[in-house]
Amino acid sequence: MIETNNIKVFDCTIRDGGLVNNFYFTDDFVRGVYNTCVKAGIDYMEIGKNNSTSLMSEDDFGAWNFCKEEDIRRIVGDNNSNLKIAVMSDIGRTVNSELLEKKDSVVDMIRIATYIHQIPEAIELAEQANKKGYETTINIMAVAKVAKKELADALQRLSKINVDVIYIADTFGSYYPNEIATLAQQYTKVASAVNKQVGIHAHNNIQLAFANTIESKNNGVTFLDVTISGLGRGAGNCAMELLIGYLDTPKYKLTPVLDFIENYIVPLEKELDWGYSIPYMVAGQLVQHPRNAMKARDEKDNKYLNFYNKSLEEN
Amino acid sequence: MIETNNIKVFDCTIRDGGLVNNFYFTDDFVRGVYNTCVKAGIDYMEIGKNNSTSLMSEDDFGAWNFCKEEDIRRIVGDNNSNLKIAVMSDIGRTVNSELLEKKDSVVDMIRIATYIHQIPEAIELAEQANKKGYETTINIMAVAKVAKKELADALQRLSKINVDVIYIADTFGSYYPNEIATLAQQYTKVASAVNKQVGIHAHNNIQLAFANTIESKNNGVTFLDVTISGLGRGAGNCAMELLIGYLDTPKYKLTPVLDFIENYIVPLEKELDWGYSIPYMVAGQLVQHPRNAMKARDEKDNKYLNFYNKSLEEN
Repeated sequence: MIETNNIKVFDCTIRDGGLVNNFYFTDDFVRGVYNTCVKAGIDYMEIGKNNSTSLMSEDDFGAWNFCKEEDIRRIVGDNNSNLKIAVMSDIGRTVNSELLEKKDSVVDMIRIATYIHQIPEAIELAEQANKKGYETTINIMAVAKVAKKELADALQRLSKINVDVIYIADTFGSYYPNEIATLAQQYTKVASAVNKQVGIHAHNNIQLAFANTIESKNNGVTFLDVTISGLGRGAGNCAMELLIGYLDTPKYKLTPVLDFIENYIVPLEKELDWGYSIPYMVAGQLVQHPRNAMKARDEKDNKYLNFYNKSLEEN
Repeated sequence: MIETNNIKVFDCTIRDGGLVNNFYFTDDFVRGVYNTCVKAGIDYMEIGKNNSTSLMSEDDFGAWNFCKEEDIRRIVGDNNSNLKIAVMSDIGRTVNSELLEKKDSVVDMIRIATYIHQIPEAIELAEQANKKGYETTINIMAVAKVAKKELADALQRLSKINVDVIYIADTFGSYYPNEIATLAQQYTKVASAVNKQVGIHAHNNIQLAFANTIESKNNGVTFLDVTISGLGRGAGNCAMELLIGYLDTPKYKLTPVLDFIENYIVPLEKELDWGYSIPYMVAGQLVQHPRNAMKARDEKDNKYLNFYNKSLEEN
């Protein structure tokens, strides 16, 4: 029996999946994810990004890139459930003053995605969101390319502010389990001293998203990101159905997830391409952003050897 | 830098892949795997099974279910390379007296696949193969359903006979890394005391074949089974290309593997179905043989919820 008392299973199907289709999900699909999360006992659902329409055009993205209050409420109503609703804020694409007071919003949590050099802006936004009444997270992206001392400094700074969860984000899907264990120990040591939680957001470039999520949990990480069938950018994420099978507790139910997969994911797989493939493996092994791999997949380019040799030149 | 001094990367593309297509690979494909293994620095290649034509009909299976000496030599000649050639013997499907003396064969190693109740026959075959001059392994299958004491007894017996490698075979693809670590410690404790090696043969039902192979290696396992692109029964195996990326040593080369994948695996993927999917996940989570999942995949049955409920009834 696996210890799950403090575990929070965090769904980001719409938000990370939105990176595959520019957030053009139908209301029916988003409602399907919401209902699945509620029935499956998931703790949080990230319904999209709250980018500002003053900074990104509504002509270029679906509604879930902006997450207007009325759009969210069209799906979740007043969200009379145990599932908490989150949105992601990208530093540089949000306008802090546009964030409603929590009492006026059905959103429970603001997750702040930041590169290491944007930490000051991330802290400012986290403090404002906290003051407005939200739970908050700060997700340090691309951590595989951050120098050791810089990361240690950033964690120290985050330990002193009003943020509830600090996330390990394996942006390049490049970590092996022993490396994730080391990172998890570093993050949880800092966080637990100040009563904060640590989260893991894994990518599946080298088929380790699930394994790295388990390994993080075994090293004190409590917020575990998943998406249904791993739907997410590039090689995708840790699959909700795998994690539920592993946690093996009555709190989380597998059957609503399987029901959603057969009715929504199977048709979607004919339209969208995501999940492990050789170009993503190459990108993960070389610790590179998956953008070239996504392009290769879009172009159905199977010249893997050529892709590898070109990728080597970039390192 | 990862310690790889004692590591043997063991290819079983044709043998485990043969379970997907009844061993009907063309000579061109088998030669492609052989050349790839040689160029990639792989240590062993299992070219098929040496089942007896007196026990299984040649009308029902391709040549690599029988591995006649002349068929192997048609591919590898005298095998003037550093790659060793292995074949697998299934207890009950081979005739011990048909095994040539090593001096008359290009085969280097006999791998013996056995269920726990067949261990006496496996020992007899291993001793005969050893006497004839071969390296040998005994692979205890379906170990997830073997009682703890029975496994301990079997390992003790194997420690006392002439067998070079004892394999953990995760037949149901059901193990999590911490469970694999425990098994690996148990096997290596027994084996190292008598100067034997331990191997791991993982399946990818719950997307952990690669992670479990790494975890085994971290716990003293030295023979690591892979197949190119994970080609193998059901959810397939640990992918050679992932393991080579992880080991990250000049001994093993990625480029020949990528070359083979783009020229041989990409076309094959249009003909054969293997690799992770929901029915295999369900079978892995429930520790069941993948045969029902293979049937569901063959019939393109995406009624996952129904599959899950029916599978539950079998437990």
